[in-house]
Amino acid sequence: MSNSSNEELEVIAISNVPHVKIHGRTTTVRSPLTLFWTGSAAELNVQGAEFWVEIESSYDLLEPWISIVINGVPVSRQMLTRGRAWICVFRGMNPNAVKNVRIIKDVQAMSGDLSNSLQFHAVKADGTFLPVEEKPLKIEFIGDSITSGEGAIGAKTEEDWVPMWFSALHNYTFMTAEALDAEYRVISQSGWGVLSSWDNNPNGNIPAYYEQVCGLLKGEQNEQLGALEPHDFSSWQPDVIVVNLGSNDDGAFQSPAWTDPITGQVYKQRLNGDGTYHEADLAKFENAVERFLIKLRKNNPQAHIIWAYGMLGSSLLPAIYRAVDAYHGQTRDHAVSILQLPNTTEETMGARSHPGDQSHRRSADVLTEYIRRIL
Amino acid sequence: MSNSSNEELEVIAISNVPHVKIHGRTTTVRSPLTLFWTGSAAELNVQGAEFWVEIESSYDLLEPWISIVINGVPVSRQMLTRGRAWICVFRGMNPNAVKNVRIIKDVQAMSGDLSNSLQFHAVKADGTFLPVEEKPLKIEFIGDSITSGEGAIGAKTEEDWVPMWFSALHNYTFMTAEALDAEYRVISQSGWGVLSSWDNNPNGNIPAYYEQVCGLLKGEQNEQLGALEPHDFSSWQPDVIVVNLGSNDDGAFQSPAWTDPITGQVYKQRLNGDGTYHEADLAKFENAVERFLIKLRKNNPQAHIIWAYGMLGSSLLPAIYRAVDAYHGQTRDHAVSILQLPNTTEETMGARSHPGDQSHRRSADVLTEYIRRIL
Amino acid sequence: MSNSSNEELEVIAISNVPHVKIHGRTTTVRSPLTLFWTGSAAELNVQGAEFWVEIESSYDLLEPWISIVINGVPVSRQMLTRGRAWICVFRGMNPNAVKNVRIIKDVQAMSGDLSNSLQFHAVKADGTFLPVEEKPLKIEFIGDSITSGEGAIGAKTEEDWVPMWFSALHNYTFMTAEALDAEYRVISQSGWGVLSSWDNNPNGNIPAYYEQVCGLLKGEQNEQLGALEPHDFSSWQPDVIVVNLGSNDDGAFQSPAWTDPITGQVYKQRLNGDGTYHEADLAKFENAVERFLIKLRKNNPQAHIIWAYGMLGSSLLPAIYRAVDAYHGQTRDHAVSILQLPNTTEETMGARSHPGDQSHRRSADVLTEYIRRIL
Amino acid sequence: MSNSSNEELEVIAISNVPHVKIHGRTTTVRSPLTLFWTGSAAELNVQGAEFWVEIESSYDLLEPWISIVINGVPVSRQMLTRGRAWICVFRGMNPNAVKNVRIIKDVQAMSGDLSNSLQFHAVKADGTFLPVEEKPLKIEFIGDSITSGEGAIGAKTEEDWVPMWFSALHNYTFMTAEALDAEYRVISQSGWGVLSSWDNNPNGNIPAYYEQVCGLLKGEQNEQLGALEPHDFSSWQPDVIVVNLGSNDDGAFQSPAWTDPITGQVYKQRLNGDGTYHEADLAKFENAVERFLIKLRKNNPQAHIIWAYGMLGSSLLPAIYRAVDAYHGQTRDHAVSILQLPNTTEETMGARSHPGDQSHRRSADVLTEYIRRIL
Repeated sequence: MSNSSNEELEVIAISNVPHVKIHGRTTTVRSPLTLFWTGSAAELNVQGAEFWVEIESSYDLLEPWISIVINGVPVSRQMLTRGRAWICVFRGMNPNAVKNVRIIKDVQAMSGDLSNSLQFHAVKADGTFLPVEEKPLKIEFIGDSITSGEGAIGAKTEEDWVPMWFSALHNYTFMTAEALDAEYRVISQSGWGVLSSWDNNPNGNIPAYYEQVCGLLKGEQNEQLGALEPHDFSSWQPDVIVVNLGSNDDGAFQSPAWTDPITGQVYKQRLNGDGTYHEADLAKFENAVERFLIKLRKNNPQAHIIWAYGMLGSSLLPAIYRAVDAYHGQTRDHAVSILQLPNTTEETMGARSHPGDQSHRRSADVLTEYIRRIL
Repeated sequence: MSNSSNEELEVIAISNVPHVKIHGRTTTVRSPLTLFWTGSAAELNVQGAEFWVEIESSYDLLEPWISIVINGVPVSRQMLTRGRAWICVFRGMNPNAVKNVRIIKDVQAMSGDLSNSLQFHAVKADGTFLPVEEKPLKIEFIGDSITSGEGAIGAKTEEDWVPMWFSALHNYTFMTAEALDAEYRVISQSGWGVLSSWDNNPNGNIPAYYEQVCGLLKGEQNEQLGALEPHDFSSWQPDVIVVNLGSNDDGAFQSPAWTDPITGQVYKQRLNGDGTYHEADLAKFENAVERFLIKLRKNNPQAHIIWAYGMLGSSLLPAIYRAVDAYHGQTRDHAVSILQLPNTTEETMGARSHPGDQSHRRSADVLTEYIRRIL
Repeated sequence: MSNSSNEELEVIAISNVPHVKIHGRTTTVRSPLTLFWTGSAAELNVQGAEFWVEIESSYDLLEPWISIVINGVPVSRQMLTRGRAWICVFRGMNPNAVKNVRIIKDVQAMSGDLSNSLQFHAVKADGTFLPVEEKPLKIEFIGDSITSGEGAIGAKTEEDWVPMWFSALHNYTFMTAEALDAEYRVISQSGWGVLSSWDNNPNGNIPAYYEQVCGLLKGEQNEQLGALEPHDFSSWQPDVIVVNLGSNDDGAFQSPAWTDPITGQVYKQRLNGDGTYHEADLAKFENAVERFLIKLRKNNPQAHIIWAYGMLGSSLLPAIYRAVDAYHGQTRDHAVSILQLPNTTEETMGARSHPGDQSHRRSADVLTEYIRRIL
Repeated sequence: MSNSSNEELEVIAISNVPHVKIHGRTTTVRSPLTLFWTGSAAELNVQGAEFWVEIESSYDLLEPWISIVINGVPVSRQMLTRGRAWICVFRGMNPNAVKNVRIIKDVQAMSGDLSNSLQFHAVKADGTFLPVEEKPLKIEFIGDSITSGEGAIGAKTEEDWVPMWFSALHNYTFMTAEALDAEYRVISQSGWGVLSSWDNNPNGNIPAYYEQVCGLLKGEQNEQLGALEPHDFSSWQPDVIVVNLGSNDDGAFQSPAWTDPITGQVYKQRLNGDGTYHEADLAKFENAVERFLIKLRKNNPQAHIIWAYGMLGSSLLPAIYRAVDAYHGQTRDHAVSILQLPNTTEETMGARSHPGDQSHRRSADVLTEYIRRIL
């Protein structure tokens, strides 16, 4: 489609575009700019009639998708097939009016595809770029498939695990941030938990990678992109951290053991004969929650931390309360609290047995209200 | 982006794809297939893991947009920049599951751009195509910018007249058809009316072009595409026709005169000094309504015709009633009725001072209920 | 229960209570005060801890009901059995706070029960009475059972024609007035129409009694109460008149003939063989509408008149349009318009196959919006 | 008003009426029948045209109110002033149709008024009484002012603590029971808690009186009515117990000390200097919760117990979790769980800074959904 771009427009490397606001953790490299996490975005205020962006998409299996939001309204959503392409964001508009444009990564970081990447190379426009206003509030969301918006778009009958059914916008993270006029970031991975992933794999835990830019990505390409670099926490300090983890830690109790292919070690969160959680294993989970809180606090000294849980059941909530109690006992840190989110019902279910748009909306309402009271 | 398509998939010309269901008036040509009107679509049931479509976009000023609906849920919406391109509809899915896919023209026929066209050349897939089920009900919608979904997407502050702010899906036509499980077609044009366009141009009247495939398109290219051919009414007979016209006929009373640049003739629907409609001019409108009803009936002998009006005010409703009365008196045809649609309020307004998604939803609810009672 | 009243409170005859605001047409007599129509009320601003009202209820068959609204919220609804009784409106409250109290007649004037009456004799309070603020807008509603709120309260299965299923508050009249901060009056009677009642009885027409206080009431008792006196239109001029009549005029076409027991004359609005309205009979209806408009205008020179119709079907709407056209043609009076109200659906149906609370709410929304635009 | 009752109807003492279903804890005495708690009711299926009930109301300060529900719809709500009176429930109806009637106590047991009582003496009807169907599910609600429906009716500006602003129907208890088709009982008292009332009075704790019929009532009259008798748990075993307590226990931390007027002992739940709960006092609360769970389980061996909390803040939720943990540890009883209810917002607030109808509705939805999953 490169033949379709307006040849008279000036191409500017993304590194040279003034006033680009980047949402989501990334490296300092801007040639090109890589977006890793869902909800990550490049935001610009463009004064001009026409605006294009050059994006490069890479993957073996799982392709990136983007959504485009103009003046607060989502107007486009598309799959990015492999390669480098110019995408026209708008054209034929009043050259004097300023358009706020956000180009948002609509799928999570794909730990299951070593070749997956999404990069911004350049823009073309016939106008100028103005500063993007700073938001008064910053929120970081940390979670699993729920927070990745898995199943938040698509028919209830959909069962394929494909990027198309992920959404950053039909998502309580986006909804909450919009309602609170907040800037936000997301750290999330489908299937992962605090202690392990749903299948008892101990490597599928978010805390282990929390201090890297996007450390759960594997492979040489991601390493070169800087995904494994330490994250510079001083560059962005959230006012609120929302942790929505636990659903897959519960799954581990319900799932078969996982054997480490290298060490041969077997991992399994056990249930008792009566279906209740095995106490020693539950303690491991609680310990993991407590350690994660310590790590969060170390890196975010001022943030109010909310463990918000319950969109797909809340069976680990008592354990989370115990973990937060233990954390309180140890630290006297009272800026950590727990919020039970509304469970997803038959009516609010989306695709792939995950929360649908309505469930995300309900949780966003509860969370928004809760954050408003805290602040 | 052609380099990004899966080279192993077999390319099939659209004319050779079995079981493509085409929505919206078009010609019999399938090499390529041209979609003219908003809401027009190619629908397929694809059993396969991956599916692409090759679309060609042409325009001078006003580019086409498409939306993709999979299993009833809109998943993608994108601008089509100039040229021929392969668009990936889905990939990486369960090859045995059947996906219902609709690729929908998301903007109206563009009478203001002689070069505008949207054409389907071919598809690529790794599976087979199954028949699309017939819907039990057929509806034809005839209207102006409201029916074209102008302003149904986009921020309230948007003022540019660009294709981006048109939507076939945030639209009472789509919503009503979905609610009634109906197949539907749309004939619509922003600014046009029954007697004239909003600026008193007598050529901007829908009835004059109703019997052609898409006769309001001008220029050699559209002629070659078959837009001016007579429409074959025998090929598709609606059960219900919804006419949502009149808003621009009212506009003509409020707007300056229009002078025919060739004949020099001046056209103007006049107001009296007290702001009421001039009677003789109002009679012209009523006459145009009556004549249109006769034309509609001639071509659609079995359809129930509903004049549904009021989403942007209803000041011509008394005149429409008189016209329908006159039509009744002349024909004894009682399958013609009038429905007042809910006015758009400050709260339900969309972009460009046109009905927003909420206003379309309210009208769809009223219209759906009304049609259910009739049937 | 008279033994339960607080004997220490001073009894004041209603005629001596300062600042009583009376809603609804009545006579000038205040010893006692008679409320005739549904929605009629005595409104007071009471500064005191306790407040009682002495009401007398009379009937043979159909007992009165009242609702009590305090500071805008309905807090009590009760049947008034035969006799004179003290009703405690509130007690034990902060004596310094002012309570706005409305005691509202919750059922229509009962033309079918010669002995039905509702009268206020006196009040008891331990405080003082303050002026009631004037509303900026006055609305008069004229209608049939819909406007009387028949079936607006009660289970869908209810079939008895009893006062219990009538509601002045679950009613579009009250809802519209509240939304517009308007004072309002209601003239309504179940089963009646513009030309005749649903059973073709020509005496069941509202216009014939419009110029009396409550002329549709019969019998000596009502005559003594002043129901048949001419209404003093100069005492209260509405800004808006809403006429919601026509449903029973349609019913007359569907119902058997009515024979005048005295003259033997037979009355019947006929249908043609094909189920359409007989033209001559339809003309009688139109004529009645036109004459009623003339009568309304004569008595209310400044009011905007809205014929609002459709909550139980809208089959006479074309005829109403013709009648208004004829009226316009004759008078050049443009402050008369027509509004189609949303039809009642299975979902919004109330008791006795009449509009339920949700249907009244929807019509109130549409009507409120419409009146806002007019004003 | 006794003169207004139909003298031809047969009076039947309530003790002789067949098939009266009594809701709410009471004694075995039926001459008369006393209702103590809010939501308590006499339910009858009456086949007849007319039905009256004779009720006696007694109080010094705080009068009883009742609501009448017919065929599932609330049709009347009224204050009962002092004395014995016949109340007409319905009249003039189809004598063959069966009406389900519930006469519901609309205010809580009034521990602050020694003379408060509500008693049913007799009924009058012209028909027969049929059995009331048993519900498949039984729920017991235990709570404070929230559960008593304080402020659930009335304007936001109301500040008086009077019975008028209490509602058993605009109440999550009634709403949840209706949604689940359950029979239910309520044990509740404004201002009371698990350990003490809001003002640190240790006598204001619900658990101490849980095993009596209505033991929190004081005075000779209540003793004679049997309020202090032990409750016969074998007579009614709930499937689900919902405990909504804690809000006043939190209040005790925020309120001044309470001094026992007899012993001179001072009671105070303390805050630390930084505003957090004093640990030893918090432990007292947790201990009280744990002991209450033991008492509940002792008396209700099969019930699922849900501690549902959060409608007016959830600051004691961590302590409740700890208490339930301790209870689990001690008993291995897993049929006890915790549910966070949605907090009341500015928008859903009712009178007297208590949850309004909308807040009760939201909590009922969450609770209904939760109970459905458990069962």
